[in-house]
Amino acid sequence: MSSYADRLAALRAQLAEDRLDGFVVPLTDEHMSEYVGSYAQRLEWLTGFKGSAGSAVVLPQEAAIFTDGRYTLQVRSQVSGDDWSYQAVPETSIASWLKEHAPEGGRIGYDPWLHSRDWVRQADEALKARGAELVAVARNPIDIVWQDRPEASTARLVVQPNEYAGQSSADKRTQIADWLGKIGADTAVLAALDSIAWTFNVRGADVSHTPVALAYALVNADGTADLFVAGEKIGADVAQHLGNGVRLHERAAFEAALEHLGGKIVAVDPERSVAAIFKALDKGKATIVSHRDPTVLPRAIKNPVEVAGHRAAQARDGAAIARFLKWVEEEAHKGGLDELKASDRLEAFRAESGLLKDLSFDSISGSGPNGAIVHYKASPETNRPLENNSLYLIDSGGQYADGTTDITRTLAIGTPSEEMCDRFTRVLKGHIALATALFPKGVRGSQLDSFARRPLWEAGLDYAHGTGHGVGSFLSVHEGPQRIAPVGSGQSGGDEPLQAGMILSNEPGYYKAGEYGIRIENLVLVVEREVAGAEKALLGFETLTFAPIARRLIVKEMLSPAEVAWLNAYHADVVAKIAPQLVGAERDWLIAACAPL
Amino acid sequence: MSSYADRLAALRAQLAEDRLDGFVVPLTDEHMSEYVGSYAQRLEWLTGFKGSAGSAVVLPQEAAIFTDGRYTLQVRSQVSGDDWSYQAVPETSIASWLKEHAPEGGRIGYDPWLHSRDWVRQADEALKARGAELVAVARNPIDIVWQDRPEASTARLVVQPNEYAGQSSADKRTQIADWLGKIGADTAVLAALDSIAWTFNVRGADVSHTPVALAYALVNADGTADLFVAGEKIGADVAQHLGNGVRLHERAAFEAALEHLGGKIVAVDPERSVAAIFKALDKGKATIVSHRDPTVLPRAIKNPVEVAGHRAAQARDGAAIARFLKWVEEEAHKGGLDELKASDRLEAFRAESGLLKDLSFDSISGSGPNGAIVHYKASPETNRPLENNSLYLIDSGGQYADGTTDITRTLAIGTPSEEMCDRFTRVLKGHIALATALFPKGVRGSQLDSFARRPLWEAGLDYAHGTGHGVGSFLSVHEGPQRIAPVGSGQSGGDEPLQAGMILSNEPGYYKAGEYGIRIENLVLVVEREVAGAEKALLGFETLTFAPIARRLIVKEMLSPAEVAWLNAYHADVVAKIAPQLVGAERDWLIAACAPL
Repeated sequence: MSSYADRLAALRAQLAEDRLDGFVVPLTDEHMSEYVGSYAQRLEWLTGFKGSAGSAVVLPQEAAIFTDGRYTLQVRSQVSGDDWSYQAVPETSIASWLKEHAPEGGRIGYDPWLHSRDWVRQADEALKARGAELVAVARNPIDIVWQDRPEASTARLVVQPNEYAGQSSADKRTQIADWLGKIGADTAVLAALDSIAWTFNVRGADVSHTPVALAYALVNADGTADLFVAGEKIGADVAQHLGNGVRLHERAAFEAALEHLGGKIVAVDPERSVAAIFKALDKGKATIVSHRDPTVLPRAIKNPVEVAGHRAAQARDGAAIARFLKWVEEEAHKGGLDELKASDRLEAFRAESGLLKDLSFDSISGSGPNGAIVHYKASPETNRPLENNSLYLIDSGGQYADGTTDITRTLAIGTPSEEMCDRFTRVLKGHIALATALFPKGVRGSQLDSFARRPLWEAGLDYAHGTGHGVGSFLSVHEGPQRIAPVGSGQSGGDEPLQAGMILSNEPGYYKAGEYGIRIENLVLVVEREVAGAEKALLGFETLTFAPIARRLIVKEMLSPAEVAWLNAYHADVVAKIAPQLVGAERDWLIAACAPL
Repeated sequence: MSSYADRLAALRAQLAEDRLDGFVVPLTDEHMSEYVGSYAQRLEWLTGFKGSAGSAVVLPQEAAIFTDGRYTLQVRSQVSGDDWSYQAVPETSIASWLKEHAPEGGRIGYDPWLHSRDWVRQADEALKARGAELVAVARNPIDIVWQDRPEASTARLVVQPNEYAGQSSADKRTQIADWLGKIGADTAVLAALDSIAWTFNVRGADVSHTPVALAYALVNADGTADLFVAGEKIGADVAQHLGNGVRLHERAAFEAALEHLGGKIVAVDPERSVAAIFKALDKGKATIVSHRDPTVLPRAIKNPVEVAGHRAAQARDGAAIARFLKWVEEEAHKGGLDELKASDRLEAFRAESGLLKDLSFDSISGSGPNGAIVHYKASPETNRPLENNSLYLIDSGGQYADGTTDITRTLAIGTPSEEMCDRFTRVLKGHIALATALFPKGVRGSQLDSFARRPLWEAGLDYAHGTGHGVGSFLSVHEGPQRIAPVGSGQSGGDEPLQAGMILSNEPGYYKAGEYGIRIENLVLVVEREVAGAEKALLGFETLTFAPIARRLIVKEMLSPAEVAWLNAYHADVVAKIAPQLVGAERDWLIAACAPL
């Protein structure tokens, strides 16, 4: 395996051969995915960065890697500062950095299958201001120099049955067709992998932890569809499930199909479709109308079957978490426990249900200072023991056919310091403030974010990530369009009005670099609420996740009576939902862990 | 005086003569001002609408008026539903309405001196999608049919001395010149009237309640400036004050001057400069660089002299308010008091200081149901008595040479209902939640807005306006760029990070249509705060406004101990700052009104 310095040198040599003065490396695939298959992990291959968001630019004499606040520590530990300069977004961007650093008159390459059209426009404008040029490459130069690049997955698709999906694929396609009629378009491009999985009620295994298959689709105004996916992945069961309203094509035929849409009015989502899709449509002289992918909102607003599935999945998952928490408490006491052993054991507890399809993301198992790395991923090199008088943070989730889970708990190993308890209690106060919020219909996630931060702000503290993200139904653990985060924080979705049926995480935290990290995360469902005398239709949150919150880390005097009441009621619910799934010592432990404060 | 129906008919006849199929009527002037001189009150002349924000479109067969949530009630009471349809922004916009309603193939006129370039682009695109055309008019057709249109003001400019401005005009121009050097531009266009007043340390009287003069300016990279203002308005004192670094021109010469900037790099603020300015620069082949008006931030961040001036002005103003509140309490009891008498008396109290230059806006003196009209302006037709067992809302402010004030108080006349007290207490809780907020540097106003709403949301209530706006120093009572309001609410500024030295209003409210309105408004100064152990530089608010808050409307049991403590401390400060300015019964009344809860 070549060193990262060698890889960078090889890429620079390839750029010279391609007569390019630079190249932009995003972390996404041809579907603008957040998590990507190993064949598309170009940023990690080039830099060593294992985070889930970032990008890089390579110039002949310098190279820069761009990450947000969640990865400030991680990027420094994984990517060599000798070869790379660290750039923080949203404070800077690739476009603004290129405006300063691109060689005047230079040609900067990009892969049009890995960038949005808006990004291309902005970067193009920035480079023009510098007298330089943005150049689409026909073949990604990284793919040329990456010798042992993995093949794309050949995993077969599976049917997601109606008992979990709650709505047939034909119904969903009719809904999209109705929408096409309303906007006066002939066909909708679906490029996002979870949009395709949701629309056709199929799941795949091409991307780690997200059950989607590499595919594109066109859904047409007559309710039929064209699905572009490798033929070898389609078994007879899936072919029958799709039915004769869905024409099957090889995925490689998609670009040519777009070029043959001349004369059609085609709806494309510019946030979920790469620049190359627009280019192919333009080439074929189709009329493009920009609209949000019509599956985004109906997918985010869970139907009653999906909500019931989520409730079942979260309760099942909570039992595994409870068993794990007891186990950690006992094992840590004996010594010899470390991050990797812990997360392996948690996966095993989850798997014992017999229903776990996959983890929903790489578990964040962070002991002591590693807990302060927001998106930490333990490896043999970084693996730390769970030491006495430290905190241990475990953020994990499971993929079940009926729902996707995501939960974080923070535990005290030994005796926590006063400061740790103060910080934990502030995070808990923020968590409760969000969990108990009532708000009128139409309110956006950004309007709720500060409720979770205020108890930290009062002590001059904060956390450098959003407070909540959407979650799919046996789909992406990070699902749009809604988000609880300030507008302008560099992550989209804070301006999306919340609607009943949406699922979000509630996960404030606190991180002391080099010492410890704290996060308390439950999933919540947006529900309608009734209040006597209300003039507005009201919404609130129903908590879906049930597992004990570490009582030993709570400073009771810092909680208001209402906050104590919330915690005690929550713990009573945990017992009601989880205790029936446990027996013996595990059941006893849970009841004790959930005793009223 | 012709009827509004006649005026609409006359405009339609003129449009037919000008071969136009429609015309757009905004509420602004050639400087994108919020408040405009009477000569520019075209929207009010045409429709009767007296609010401070709105716009209209006239087509041959239909006409629509567009207002935001603050004016939902007012527009229906002032503008005839027979002739006009009411449209709510931001739910709709002129561009989207025209896209549906413009005659296909029609020519829709607009005055390029009254719209931003962005507005023109959007409307143009919307009309093109309709097969219609947006047409710049050479002369505003309303000005042709408006027979008795007032002449523009000829008021003389006055010098704003350094003892109030705190920084010389030469210093300010040097600062702008330095900035021009940094961005590589030759000259900056200043089109906003308060930008010009601030830069040159002059004040005018061309716009009611805002002490500005109609003018344009170019500030150049060498520190000199060109000021375009009617020569008759410049006395010898002002000419001497401006000095020989400022070349004087007639305002009418501005367009031609822009056309002569060919070859120059000109910084223009697209949010504060009308489309005609861009057109003139394009015509002359200047290179335009879009930047925010360089005076906006330094004007918003008050210097120590301005802060001291504000403190003095607010304390002086608070004494007038206290005397007024006592007077209302006693007069209302006797009967015979009405909205106009009350606001006249308040102006007289303010004038008794001998330092009042003007009101800072038309007082909102709303009795009973009129208090629910957010931007109500009492007139002889709407004037209501202050009746027993009702609420009275008074929102008012003064212009003083050392500061601009803005305060709202709500009083109970007779015995308030339980509901009124509940609502008042919720508004007070929201006011206190914002007043006591601590937050890291970099936080935007939008992130604080919900603190003020939460106590109302919990009862299913809300208010349809922002929570806080910036305030000038003897300038606009609504000053950008900062605002405490949700992003996406249709008012800009919620995404501006707050900085120490900025002044904002804190004004949550509650309005029950047809019954009563409640608002509690103080001005607050953003200040640096120290907290032991803080990891972030922290900001908070220092309240600048001092006047009693009606204790009779407060349900003490609904307040937390911390909220009671805040109110008692605030009232103690009111006594400390205001009592020394009062004597006898007025002093006694104030002390009683500020007794601890």
